[in-house]
Amino acid sequence: MDLPKLKVETTRLVCELEQLATFSECSEPSPAVTRVVFTETDVKAREYLRGLYETAGLAVRTDAVGNTFARWEGSEPDLPAVGTGSHTDAIPHSGMYDGTVGVLGGLEAIRALQQSGFRPRRSIDVVMFTSEEPTRFGVGCTGSRLMSGALSVAQLASLRDESGSTYDQARTQAGFTGELSTALLAPNAYSAFVELHIEQGPLLEQAAESIGVVTAIAAPSTVHFEVTGEGGHAGAVLMPMRRDALAAAAGMVLAIERLALDSRSPDLVATVGELHVHPGAVNSIPSRVRFTLDLRDIDGDNRDEVLESVVAACTQIASQRRVEISHQVLNADPPAVCDERIVEAAVRAAERLQLAHRRMISRAYHDSLLMARIAPTGMIFIPCRGGVSHRPDEYASPEHMEAGVATLALTLAQLAS
Amino acid sequence: MDLPKLKVETTRLVCELEQLATFSECSEPSPAVTRVVFTETDVKAREYLRGLYETAGLAVRTDAVGNTFARWEGSEPDLPAVGTGSHTDAIPHSGMYDGTVGVLGGLEAIRALQQSGFRPRRSIDVVMFTSEEPTRFGVGCTGSRLMSGALSVAQLASLRDESGSTYDQARTQAGFTGELSTALLAPNAYSAFVELHIEQGPLLEQAAESIGVVTAIAAPSTVHFEVTGEGGHAGAVLMPMRRDALAAAAGMVLAIERLALDSRSPDLVATVGELHVHPGAVNSIPSRVRFTLDLRDIDGDNRDEVLESVVAACTQIASQRRVEISHQVLNADPPAVCDERIVEAAVRAAERLQLAHRRMISRAYHDSLLMARIAPTGMIFIPCRGGVSHRPDEYASPEHMEAGVATLALTLAQLAS
Repeated sequence: MDLPKLKVETTRLVCELEQLATFSECSEPSPAVTRVVFTETDVKAREYLRGLYETAGLAVRTDAVGNTFARWEGSEPDLPAVGTGSHTDAIPHSGMYDGTVGVLGGLEAIRALQQSGFRPRRSIDVVMFTSEEPTRFGVGCTGSRLMSGALSVAQLASLRDESGSTYDQARTQAGFTGELSTALLAPNAYSAFVELHIEQGPLLEQAAESIGVVTAIAAPSTVHFEVTGEGGHAGAVLMPMRRDALAAAAGMVLAIERLALDSRSPDLVATVGELHVHPGAVNSIPSRVRFTLDLRDIDGDNRDEVLESVVAACTQIASQRRVEISHQVLNADPPAVCDERIVEAAVRAAERLQLAHRRMISRAYHDSLLMARIAPTGMIFIPCRGGVSHRPDEYASPEHMEAGVATLALTLAQLAS
Repeated sequence: MDLPKLKVETTRLVCELEQLATFSECSEPSPAVTRVVFTETDVKAREYLRGLYETAGLAVRTDAVGNTFARWEGSEPDLPAVGTGSHTDAIPHSGMYDGTVGVLGGLEAIRALQQSGFRPRRSIDVVMFTSEEPTRFGVGCTGSRLMSGALSVAQLASLRDESGSTYDQARTQAGFTGELSTALLAPNAYSAFVELHIEQGPLLEQAAESIGVVTAIAAPSTVHFEVTGEGGHAGAVLMPMRRDALAAAAGMVLAIERLALDSRSPDLVATVGELHVHPGAVNSIPSRVRFTLDLRDIDGDNRDEVLESVVAACTQIASQRRVEISHQVLNADPPAVCDERIVEAAVRAAERLQLAHRRMISRAYHDSLLMARIAPTGMIFIPCRGGVSHRPDEYASPEHMEAGVATLALTLAQLAS
């Protein structure tokens, strides 16, 4: 096919990204962004996006958990559509490009195609997935998990945040109502799904390449641990009598790190990113510690083996220290393989645009991991400075965003023709 | 002197303690108590106490930080007064006896003396100290520190809580105004101060004794540590590249425990009771961890030596892991020796009441530690079940509280005559 000639309005995209970044918890000093699902901040950011979609002439639909679909109708609207998109929620104190580049970049790709005179045969949707980040409910990708059936309605509804609110209560308070089951997508809803995202790693930047075409997405696992010891007054209980839950958890954090370093796969990463001490007072012996392990590998079997070793090591430490331990696997998704037709369309787009590119693996997970269960799926990466993500200094250059949007647009054009 | 015959109304005291326990953060399931200084809960508890003082005919004065003095005027009101009292703030998820027994028990001792026909020569004050617990501002005994000059007005005003509020802002919002310097007590304000408290340790219960007369209070030290590593996406940064602040802090927690266990003093205790992870997201490598060390010994020199070793060990771990570390000693009070005249008065009171008693050391610290800087000071302990404190199951029996109140009353009668 003849690919359209595009003009990406990068300045507009950058302005919109900056505007979106202003929807952040008010205590957060710029440029840090905190935007947690179903908060007032999240709702306001969604309203801003809706305005942009409507200005671009897209038809907007929102499902029962706030997943938002902005549709550019194709000439054969009854055909399965082509989807693009990502998420706009942001973990505490993070940056302004993770996810947002895929949502606003997806919109910009559609606007560039509209402006080029291209007319799609299949409809093209920009999807904004609810809650890719696990910040509030401990599980990531709740929107795409529900859509794809990876999480049942009952499991989703009963997730709880720190304050005890259920997912169901929180989405209702944010204005998203209706039966949760209506958010499940029909198996043929999309003929293809392709997500634009910053790499969140250093490889493209190091190789001075503009585009990464993702061929597989690593398998993440999230495990919740709870250690219960015995509390007491910090002045009164002598050291040999203690069953300190934090000291036990500290040993577990170090054991997890050691097992990850010693793993046979150099790609395996293990992170304890959250750890909460109860009762959490200077002069009180910790009676309970909860922490979460994020374990990933591109080799799903190795990841599962390491997880087994971690549980065994933590159980042994608990036994030696006479504390209780329990664990719960919140998710242990299989890796996803990208659709070869989408990979080739993206490679062709990058070649046409004369952009340096490579095929690569995603070590971070994305909504695409879940979309891959119900549609042929692909991803396009652009570099981010220093490989940094989930930090206020996360940065993608306008040039790289322009390259990503153009590659995405030409990929969508092929998939929607 | 002839000691008065007393009738302690224990049922009333128990009811008042239970009533006071209802002033707790509303999310707290009974019997756990959370009452943090300068919150609405704290303010309401203070109003409740004021009503009780006024009903007992006491004249109530509140200073610029909320320290409250309820005075039973003596026949020679210009003489230095006798003080008793304790605190009513409660660390998160704690019990209903720590501190409160000294405040409501102090009031009950006065009521029992009033009812006996006793008339004091010196005025007797029940003091409710603001914020004995370090929960909110990291430093314990802020009320008695200010009163006794152990903390300067400038140091106090600039303490900050987690939300960034200063002590000065928080006390003003709670309705306590006026120059902070007016809260300093004159050196001759009290001729004696004696505090009734639960033991917070197991010794009295194990020996089946009702009364502990404290002869010295252990030297506590509170040190704040901050570890700064490098954050990043949990999926993207490979293990050998990481500078994980939590993994470093975990090593430090274990090193602290080891140094305390190996200390030459069996009484040395070291506790990391608070630990906060930043940014605190499941999928984000911890970039910063703050934790607080509570280190105590009845041997002040040994405590200081262990603190030095702890700082050295943490510095070494930080260096090995290429993370930054800083520490700040929030307080390192010298131990206090109780006044022999007060000790003897308390022993005489217990003997008169035919209560099994012992002289003992306090390993927990109290406002008395600070009051000892400006007045002859003593403490009276009663047993608590299993030595448990700072937990919801903290418990002191009505019989032991009655014994404590009666001993306190007869001690006050001697000191005020």
